[in-house]
Amino acid sequence: MIFIGEKINGTRKKIKEAVIERNELYIMDIAKSQAESGADYLDINAGTDPDRETEDLIWLIETVQSVVDTPICIDSSTPSAIKAALEIVREIPMINSINADMERLDDFLPFIKEKNCEVIALALDESKSGMPKTIDERMQALEVIFKETHKKEIDDDKVFIDPLIMAVGTDQSAGNIAFDCIREIRSAYPDAHIAGGLSNISFGLPNRSLINRTFLTLARAFGMDSAVVNPSDVELIESLYATDLLLGKDRFCRKYTNAAKDSFSKKK
Amino acid sequence: MIFIGEKINGTRKKIKEAVIERNELYIMDIAKSQAESGADYLDINAGTDPDRETEDLIWLIETVQSVVDTPICIDSSTPSAIKAALEIVREIPMINSINADMERLDDFLPFIKEKNCEVIALALDESKSGMPKTIDERMQALEVIFKETHKKEIDDDKVFIDPLIMAVGTDQSAGNIAFDCIREIRSAYPDAHIAGGLSNISFGLPNRSLINRTFLTLARAFGMDSAVVNPSDVELIESLYATDLLLGKDRFCRKYTNAAKDSFSKKK
Repeated sequence: MIFIGEKINGTRKKIKEAVIERNELYIMDIAKSQAESGADYLDINAGTDPDRETEDLIWLIETVQSVVDTPICIDSSTPSAIKAALEIVREIPMINSINADMERLDDFLPFIKEKNCEVIALALDESKSGMPKTIDERMQALEVIFKETHKKEIDDDKVFIDPLIMAVGTDQSAGNIAFDCIREIRSAYPDAHIAGGLSNISFGLPNRSLINRTFLTLARAFGMDSAVVNPSDVELIESLYATDLLLGKDRFCRKYTNAAKDSFSKKK
Repeated sequence: MIFIGEKINGTRKKIKEAVIERNELYIMDIAKSQAESGADYLDINAGTDPDRETEDLIWLIETVQSVVDTPICIDSSTPSAIKAALEIVREIPMINSINADMERLDDFLPFIKEKNCEVIALALDESKSGMPKTIDERMQALEVIFKETHKKEIDDDKVFIDPLIMAVGTDQSAGNIAFDCIREIRSAYPDAHIAGGLSNISFGLPNRSLINRTFLTLARAFGMDSAVVNPSDVELIESLYATDLLLGKDRFCRKYTNAAKDSFSKKK
């Protein structure tokens, strides 16, 4: 399972404050804690107004890179901000995100190919409609995206497909739509990764982390292999170890038993 | 989900002692606690020598029935003990268990039909071999069993199939075998229930309850609808509520949100 740490995101109030105030220590602490918990990437989103986003994003990345080596997932919809960030990242980053909007594909794919980045591909067409309702809409958006990545000779295993998980609190079929969609994506694009933000699924309901980790167990069984999560959530991590154990993905139960010795407090 | 409470079982040391000493209060407490936690059946197994099993089983059932109304799951391999128990149970009981052994089927099916009991059917042939290794062996045993239950006109929905879950600690494919087997049973016998003891899966490994509840989440997704469990295990219950919510089995999320209000301490 590839974990993308979700916490350094300026759409969260405390992070935004830290960005505005240039509170380095606050950001460093979160970065260190997520890296120690085993995040494979740290998502970094400045979340500030376009006129200062580039500057804030650069400051955030430099602050994070001053304490950890974890690769960065550059989270922005502004090509110029991403291009500036690409100049200063030390490891090959992930880009968050593209979708079936042709204008964005034309902007993003050249530098994704050139820098050999991984990229999160949302299963929607931003230029056409909002959140897709059906699995078909999602698959059509992915078809557009992969037609373009193939043209640019970007390998499928560089692409992390986000199936766009909806809230089960507002639509009780949201879980099944996600699971069916993950199965369909796994079959259509066997070499691509399937990632997704976990937190949408539980929006508006009590005990959200319980729903999120149960969702991850089921999504993992259907083919999800990456997630945007809080890697310090021990209950999520232990539940994932048990899931991989049960799905035959843990030779001689070694990962599980080793992690249990450490009380599942770190991803190995 | 239909829960069969597992705790009143004489193969457990403390229960055996309570049986020998006729410690009524100890048994009553366990029965009440499981009933309050929402057990649909209470499994009762005397676990004593054949020469005293009937007497012990009767004492256990009468002790349990003096404090709760929950139907009993009579757990014995001795037809005479089961027949004696059938005379004193107040609710229609479940019988634990039959398998593809013809002698046992001939003994058990007539009274199962006559008393309209539910019955646990192990996917093995006790007369032929030990624990089945493959899914095919299990399906063959079930074929024998259903041929006989159909002859006796016992409805499939009276049968709780136990797919015989093995320990993932000794065979890392045990989880996948169980899931594939559950899927195959669900497709071959759509009206039958699929039950199973959870505890085998985690045998020999640390944090067993974590593995058990993760297994139940996955098994539920593939079609298991009943389990022999400790219904007072709050983490198991909350994880099952979240599973049903995500699998679209909880209209308007009502069961989940109500249970969350009660901190998932009771099955509703």
